[in-house]
Amino acid sequence: MTLSQSTLDELVAAGVSVRTDPDVIETYSHDRSPAPYGLALAVVSPADTAQVSETMKWATRHRVPVVVRGAGSGIAGAATASDGCIILSTAHLNRILDIDAPNMLATTQPAVITAELDRAVAQRGLMYAPDPGSVEICSIGGNVATNAGGLRCVKYGVTRDSIAGLEVVLADGRIIRTGRRTVKNVSGYDLTGLFVGSEGTLGVVTEIDVRLRPRPVGLSPVIVGSFTDTAAAGAAVAQVMSANLEPELMELLDRRTLTLIDDFKHTGLEPDAGALLVAQTTGTSAIERAAVIAELFTTAGGFDVIVSDDAAEAEQLIEIRRLAYPAYEHAGAALVEDVAVPRSRLADMLAAVDEISARHGVTVASVAHAGDGNVHPTFIYERGLPEVPDEVMAAAEEVFRTAISFGGTLTGEHGVGVLKKRWLGEDLGADTLAVCHDIKGALDPLGILNPGKAI
Amino acid sequence: MTLSQSTLDELVAAGVSVRTDPDVIETYSHDRSPAPYGLALAVVSPADTAQVSETMKWATRHRVPVVVRGAGSGIAGAATASDGCIILSTAHLNRILDIDAPNMLATTQPAVITAELDRAVAQRGLMYAPDPGSVEICSIGGNVATNAGGLRCVKYGVTRDSIAGLEVVLADGRIIRTGRRTVKNVSGYDLTGLFVGSEGTLGVVTEIDVRLRPRPVGLSPVIVGSFTDTAAAGAAVAQVMSANLEPELMELLDRRTLTLIDDFKHTGLEPDAGALLVAQTTGTSAIERAAVIAELFTTAGGFDVIVSDDAAEAEQLIEIRRLAYPAYEHAGAALVEDVAVPRSRLADMLAAVDEISARHGVTVASVAHAGDGNVHPTFIYERGLPEVPDEVMAAAEEVFRTAISFGGTLTGEHGVGVLKKRWLGEDLGADTLAVCHDIKGALDPLGILNPGKAI
Ligand SMILES: Cc1cc2nc3c(=O)[nH]c(=O)nc-3n(C[C@H](O)[C@H](O)[C@H](O)COP(=O)(O)OP(=O)(O)OC[C@H]3O[C@@H](n4cnc5c(N)ncnc54)[C@H](O)[C@@H]3O)c2cc1C
Ligand SMILES: Cc1cc2nc3c(=O)[nH]c(=O)nc-3n(C[C@H](O)[C@H](O)[C@H](O)COP(=O)(O)OP(=O)(O)OC[C@H]3O[C@@H](n4cnc5c(N)ncnc54)[C@H](O)[C@@H]3O)c2cc1C
Repeated sequence: MTLSQSTLDELVAAGVSVRTDPDVIETYSHDRSPAPYGLALAVVSPADTAQVSETMKWATRHRVPVVVRGAGSGIAGAATASDGCIILSTAHLNRILDIDAPNMLATTQPAVITAELDRAVAQRGLMYAPDPGSVEICSIGGNVATNAGGLRCVKYGVTRDSIAGLEVVLADGRIIRTGRRTVKNVSGYDLTGLFVGSEGTLGVVTEIDVRLRPRPVGLSPVIVGSFTDTAAAGAAVAQVMSANLEPELMELLDRRTLTLIDDFKHTGLEPDAGALLVAQTTGTSAIERAAVIAELFTTAGGFDVIVSDDAAEAEQLIEIRRLAYPAYEHAGAALVEDVAVPRSRLADMLAAVDEISARHGVTVASVAHAGDGNVHPTFIYERGLPEVPDEVMAAAEEVFRTAISFGGTLTGEHGVGVLKKRWLGEDLGADTLAVCHDIKGALDPLGILNPGKAI
Repeated sequence: MTLSQSTLDELVAAGVSVRTDPDVIETYSHDRSPAPYGLALAVVSPADTAQVSETMKWATRHRVPVVVRGAGSGIAGAATASDGCIILSTAHLNRILDIDAPNMLATTQPAVITAELDRAVAQRGLMYAPDPGSVEICSIGGNVATNAGGLRCVKYGVTRDSIAGLEVVLADGRIIRTGRRTVKNVSGYDLTGLFVGSEGTLGVVTEIDVRLRPRPVGLSPVIVGSFTDTAAAGAAVAQVMSANLEPELMELLDRRTLTLIDDFKHTGLEPDAGALLVAQTTGTSAIERAAVIAELFTTAGGFDVIVSDDAAEAEQLIEIRRLAYPAYEHAGAALVEDVAVPRSRLADMLAAVDEISARHGVTVASVAHAGDGNVHPTFIYERGLPEVPDEVMAAAEEVFRTAISFGGTLTGEHGVGVLKKRWLGEDLGADTLAVCHDIKGALDPLGILNPGKAI
């Protein structure tokens, strides 16, 4: 540690904020997952891109592992400390640098909270579309690094689809720009897309050009329908998605989730429903499209189908969906999983989750970004245990393998982190994983960026 | 050549079609650009993925450069032969393997003609969105390798946005799968996005999972408006694009293009117009949105604004746009360029092109995918010259530099190929280009895939 202290002093001398208090280190060492974590040397908080570059040059010189940390809202254990690393916090890189309304672009530093970015551009009639459930507590840099999804993705795509370009500091401290402030660009390889979703293993994202969209105006009706089981709900989703109705939201809550929400908030949600669907339309002809969705819900066996275009009531209906996570956390410790399957296998996946849950005797409740076939089976277990219980991991493993066998993946939006690394080879195939390793080796030959995570 | 013949015999022994007739080699050695090309050893046409893999193993063993060729419609010189290479033609990989309507996916081999893929899925009420002007003469594999754009991109994005996954044969013959048949997927790096647009320099694409969309039903009105100059037309485009009207087409033709089309077909196009805009809307509320677009055209100074929802007449109006290339080719030899700028600089870019054209005394006519800020300044010069004249290249260089100085790029959709390689460093910056080289080195360490092109 003495050697480390003197090397750390070089960073301090370069003007970079370096904290080594055990409390601070502890706070910055884990994300929101139950993943185990190691002991970091320090929390380093550069003030600008140049300081990030200095930090990476220093880390390269001394072969110090660097774990980049955004807001720490991740649930895959991707931003957790490894022994002897520094935690590079982006916290001070927290300004929106430019809003270019005519080109529908904004340039931002990475620590800006996603919802704040969206509120800032809303004042110009624009929207930043990707809206993870964590939108109020996650950073846009973390969203880029995990290629975050969210509710509106069903209409507008994932984070990658909203990123025009990046400024990235490489492992050796070089600063590069990727992408372009144009709509189209095919010069050079798609480095922007490569850095998006790379979970801090290829570079530190220090600036982000995001693509914006016109903010929908007018009424944004919400459609809610109950179904006897997830199979019926899944069939309704399939019909809506193939009918050009462009829902902005198409969420599913399973029976156990509804029960947990009711236990938590006494919402009086239909106790007989095996599944609830929540959809929303926005923009031109939103009302007409909402009516068609309601009709499709009913035809598919939905009951208690409601369409509300009253803004406050619509917000309340969406709020039910947002209560899922708090309800899970109210019920116990929660391991949130994140499989994605081809949309046609959504109902099969939900049925498999129920079967696995019953067989292993573990509690699993699911919400799904149903329009995208992305299911979050959440394993709820006793609070305060040192690790995730074995039977929970065994059940989760079966869920992953089932998703893969359906042509799906073990992570739709949360990332691999440490928690899912063990299954990555199964998911990708050995040669595809090898290519990822080759790329990692080319960009970070010393392996100092987020070692042991993702790739 | 004798040595080469005996090594080629190994490929023949492996059952791969190998042709060495000079006529065949000549036919397959160039694309549609005026780029110079070298002398290939042979045209090799594998019958399936396994034979592609055999071919690449053979090429690795003998260090033979491999130029992959789709339909040869490229205009950047990306599929042109280099001395001593083999041309790997995808021609026999020409089947659509699967149309999965419920998941709105299709799986296809690379040599399928883009328009044929779209027609095949149309029978299921689906659409393959990207539609380069060359849609009837280019292959989907070539579209993937160039990240092709097109007219409908303004609504649906470029080729990359429609690709779910790939099968790729690597330089050493390994066969990998990238991506997933899911809507969302964050396991591993985005290799799909990386191979898209890589111009045959990272691997041979042997299978493609494309994302489809519901095919718009109902009327698809076309809106046409004349403007006194490109500045006024540019302003109209900006207004339409920021108004959530979701045009499926937003094309601009400049004065010289209108004149050349009139010379070619005597269309009687408005002789006083400095620019013509052609837009289209499709899907729900297409008629209402078309009316708003027409209004915005008029407010921005447009005249002779027409809206037509008669299918045949609408098709005729779009046909005007499609006449641009034939009209250019009718007028002389054509070097089609492809700059893209932030949308707000569209009018500035068109003005700069005119100024550069006048100063260098070369004829330049432009069409633009205006909604995307993607301009095709086409340099028209004397037919039959051995090379592109110096003054044309000098003017083109100025056009590139101007686009870059506007925050744009030298290629929006056609690719770098050989023709634009010289300016790639200026476009990307030295360090970003170096990262592209590092990735190329990691995936193709011997440098046998399309050497001298793009990266
Ligand atoms: C209640 C709740 C709901 C959630 N809902 C969703 C959801 O709907 N969709 C979804 O996708 N996720 C969701 N998440 C997960 C999480 O919020 C996202 O993964 C988010 O993108 C993480 O952002 P962060 O800033 O907190 O990143 P962190 O947790 O700090 O880091 C995540 C990863 O990004 C890397 N990283 C962060 N910043 C940078 C940077 N500037 N440069 C390079 N690497 C960087 C880290 O090294 C790490 O690998 C949810 C989480 C919670 C707690
Ligand atoms: C009249 C006309 C209009 C055009 N309009 C447009 C337009 O609107 N938008 C647009 O983007 N382009 C346009 N183009 C350019 C061209 O059609 C596109 O670049 C198209 O994508 C090329 O496809 P191709 O099959 O002909 O590829 P080729 O010309 O054969 O090859 C192009 C590149 O792709 C590589 N390649 C081809 N197949 C594979 C494979 N299976 N695996 C790996 N690499 C491969 C080649 O090595 C080469 O680098 C136009 C061309 C013409 C002649």
